[in-house]
Amino acid sequence: MLRITILFLIVSISASAQDSVIIRNIYNYALTKSSAYNRLDHLCNEIGPRLSGSKNAEKAVQYTQQELIKAGADSVWLQPCKVEYWERGMQETGWYYEKDKKMPLRVCALGASIATPFEGLEAEVIEIYDFKDLEKIGKEKIRGKIVFINHPMDPTHINTFTAYGECGGYRYNGAKEAGAFGAVGVIVRSLSLSISDLPHTGVMAYGDNGIKIPACAVSTRDAEKLSAAIKSNGVLKVGFQQTCRNNGEVTSYNVIAEIRGREYPDEIIIAGGHLDSWDLATGAHDDGTGVVQSMEMISIFKNLGLTPRRTIRCVLFMNEEAGGRGALAYAAAADSLHENHIAAIESDRGGFTPRGFTFDGDTAEIEYAKEFKSMLTRYSLHEWDKGYAGTDINKLKKQGTLLIGYSPDSQRYFDVHHNAADTFDKVNKRELELGAASITSLVWLLSEHGVTSSPLKN
Amino acid sequence: MLRITILFLIVSISASAQDSVIIRNIYNYALTKSSAYNRLDHLCNEIGPRLSGSKNAEKAVQYTQQELIKAGADSVWLQPCKVEYWERGMQETGWYYEKDKKMPLRVCALGASIATPFEGLEAEVIEIYDFKDLEKIGKEKIRGKIVFINHPMDPTHINTFTAYGECGGYRYNGAKEAGAFGAVGVIVRSLSLSISDLPHTGVMAYGDNGIKIPACAVSTRDAEKLSAAIKSNGVLKVGFQQTCRNNGEVTSYNVIAEIRGREYPDEIIIAGGHLDSWDLATGAHDDGTGVVQSMEMISIFKNLGLTPRRTIRCVLFMNEEAGGRGALAYAAAADSLHENHIAAIESDRGGFTPRGFTFDGDTAEIEYAKEFKSMLTRYSLHEWDKGYAGTDINKLKKQGTLLIGYSPDSQRYFDVHHNAADTFDKVNKRELELGAASITSLVWLLSEHGVTSSPLKN
Repeated sequence: MLRITILFLIVSISASAQDSVIIRNIYNYALTKSSAYNRLDHLCNEIGPRLSGSKNAEKAVQYTQQELIKAGADSVWLQPCKVEYWERGMQETGWYYEKDKKMPLRVCALGASIATPFEGLEAEVIEIYDFKDLEKIGKEKIRGKIVFINHPMDPTHINTFTAYGECGGYRYNGAKEAGAFGAVGVIVRSLSLSISDLPHTGVMAYGDNGIKIPACAVSTRDAEKLSAAIKSNGVLKVGFQQTCRNNGEVTSYNVIAEIRGREYPDEIIIAGGHLDSWDLATGAHDDGTGVVQSMEMISIFKNLGLTPRRTIRCVLFMNEEAGGRGALAYAAAADSLHENHIAAIESDRGGFTPRGFTFDGDTAEIEYAKEFKSMLTRYSLHEWDKGYAGTDINKLKKQGTLLIGYSPDSQRYFDVHHNAADTFDKVNKRELELGAASITSLVWLLSEHGVTSSPLKN
Repeated sequence: MLRITILFLIVSISASAQDSVIIRNIYNYALTKSSAYNRLDHLCNEIGPRLSGSKNAEKAVQYTQQELIKAGADSVWLQPCKVEYWERGMQETGWYYEKDKKMPLRVCALGASIATPFEGLEAEVIEIYDFKDLEKIGKEKIRGKIVFINHPMDPTHINTFTAYGECGGYRYNGAKEAGAFGAVGVIVRSLSLSISDLPHTGVMAYGDNGIKIPACAVSTRDAEKLSAAIKSNGVLKVGFQQTCRNNGEVTSYNVIAEIRGREYPDEIIIAGGHLDSWDLATGAHDDGTGVVQSMEMISIFKNLGLTPRRTIRCVLFMNEEAGGRGALAYAAAADSLHENHIAAIESDRGGFTPRGFTFDGDTAEIEYAKEFKSMLTRYSLHEWDKGYAGTDINKLKKQGTLLIGYSPDSQRYFDVHHNAADTFDKVNKRELELGAASITSLVWLLSEHGVTSSPLKN
């Protein structure tokens, strides 16, 4: 009995020491030889914005597929999915009248919105703070008006995603809710914590009642200006013009690269981000960084000669921004092929300096994963919290997969999210590389030690 | 005995609960009502670069003094110190010859360096990696040459200050070491982890042997280019021209603001940064952010109506970059007045997102301070490590003061440090404010609970 205990102890320590060395090598590689920054440069500056269904999204599929083949993955394949190809059209304009003077509003159409009439839509404005205000004001007063939803994100949350979570519904459901009260259009305050001139786009959806009204976002600075004008002058007329349209369904693809597991090839661990982006910038932080970090995991495994015990995959999802069809296609294939995904990591919170991971799944598995934490705190990964992991991997939840969200620092994210500032120059090379190393290290530990029983003794 | 234990427990919990509420209020204030960002804007964009001894440094003294009076400190005073007023002069030029073709080198004079002859200094170059190379090459070969010290910072350190610490000596002592071997000038690779066109200045010093040779820094990109040219073409001529000069001693000031302690006024806790900056940009991260965060501590205490149990001070040091005379003056005054500084926090590592603190002092006091950690991890302050705290407060070490360095994220710091990129737009408002709240919260806890015995029961 004593001998067995000692033996276990030795196995445990040696596994842990070996892991330590491998993780140090992963970070050294990422910080000195990574391709992540150059690949991001290509994705942003050679290809550009990657709206679902667009030519650029197709180019991104081809580019990442070729890069993953060059990186030496055992297999690389495309997984088809149908996506709606919505386009913005001409640059939008917005305006309001302050004592007969026409003042500009910086606006942008929300994704999936219909266009206004070509000459624009103009009506009296009603400002609301939340959807309860619609009830209070009532259909009679709202009918024929443009509803302006002015709900600032709460700056007192330390993690900015909490504030985003509280407000996302105003953008997504604003047109549906205001339309049901007879509004003819909706203008939503941009989801940002900074006062800025740039409007933030993002997806919205209509309800099943057939009512569709044009929806746009206004910059936070102009939201403040419009609100002040309403308060000082009473009812005002506002207007906006947008020519966006839906071109219908197009076939697009997820890009998948795999390294087969040396011992348990049927147990799969994925790391992924999404290939598509919004069109106002080049999708650097959302989600170019998640894409190149997931690709880098394959490059690092191959370049360091690491053969994972379990199968690992880089999954580049299509259409996260505008329907999540890629995620649905991936989960459907996993189901029909009876694939066993034991863990999935998503990187879709920007490419900022690493903070940790969020875990969503079985309590025992979350506790088990926490045992890895001590190996990664020296790399500034301190936050190992229970929490939502990510939209694309969330579709695997019904399989019982342990879902893990990579969590970089959140403070700057909503300065660039979905707006014209989300460009390559906002990404810091080291922060990007540290993120790639963080994800790769956790994939290594999961691939060696699985997701159940004591990890460092497995 | 049992009753005493229970009583202690209740006192402990209630102190901790009250502290929690106060800390939450500190963060809420900082994230919604802080003056830090506007003050930084003024310091950088209205005043500008703040070289020790310059008119701008004087303006910064007056501005911060007035702001601290307006903030409502019990007393605000100036503490004189003599500083050397070194000036850069004309923009520097640098060059090398590649097969008779004159190629530009982006250089800047190091602080305290002498000028070159007005027409510039030109000589054969010898590239070295470290000072041991000087010994290896020998005086005979070095005499009359310009020594090029090309020692890149090590990118594999997770905390970039570790890499800086390893290389700082090449900048500070390069001229002294190379001069002793007969070199006529020294060009030092800029201390930065990124490959960039901007040269990084910083202070250097000569030895006591009377040898003074001109010293400059070259941008990392041009260091790579020059090194490649030397390797491919053998010995090359290089040159640089700089017109910097020392204008002699000028009287300048530390700015100090105090709120008297309600119970132990003789126990002093300070938070500080440095008012002076380099001249290539506007000293936003180095150290405008440390200055406005320390000032914000006073504003937050006054606006929230917090009266500290111990005396707290905001200390804005002069001359950190070019001799540390302000720190010496502060420590000398503390000695002669027999002031008891129980703790000192320095913010001089940029205004990036908070990570934690480093502690330098008595082991028992460090352990004691760690008990505060659990109250601040929810605000992303995870790193409570033993380590160097800061140059300005270091002079208090002989008093036995617990020295604390505020540690924001270090990844982006050496992209802007001492170069033309250290401007206001590189500072994120929320990151700056979170830093102010972090420092203020720790000052609150230290002021309530002191630095010895169990903090939450004191």
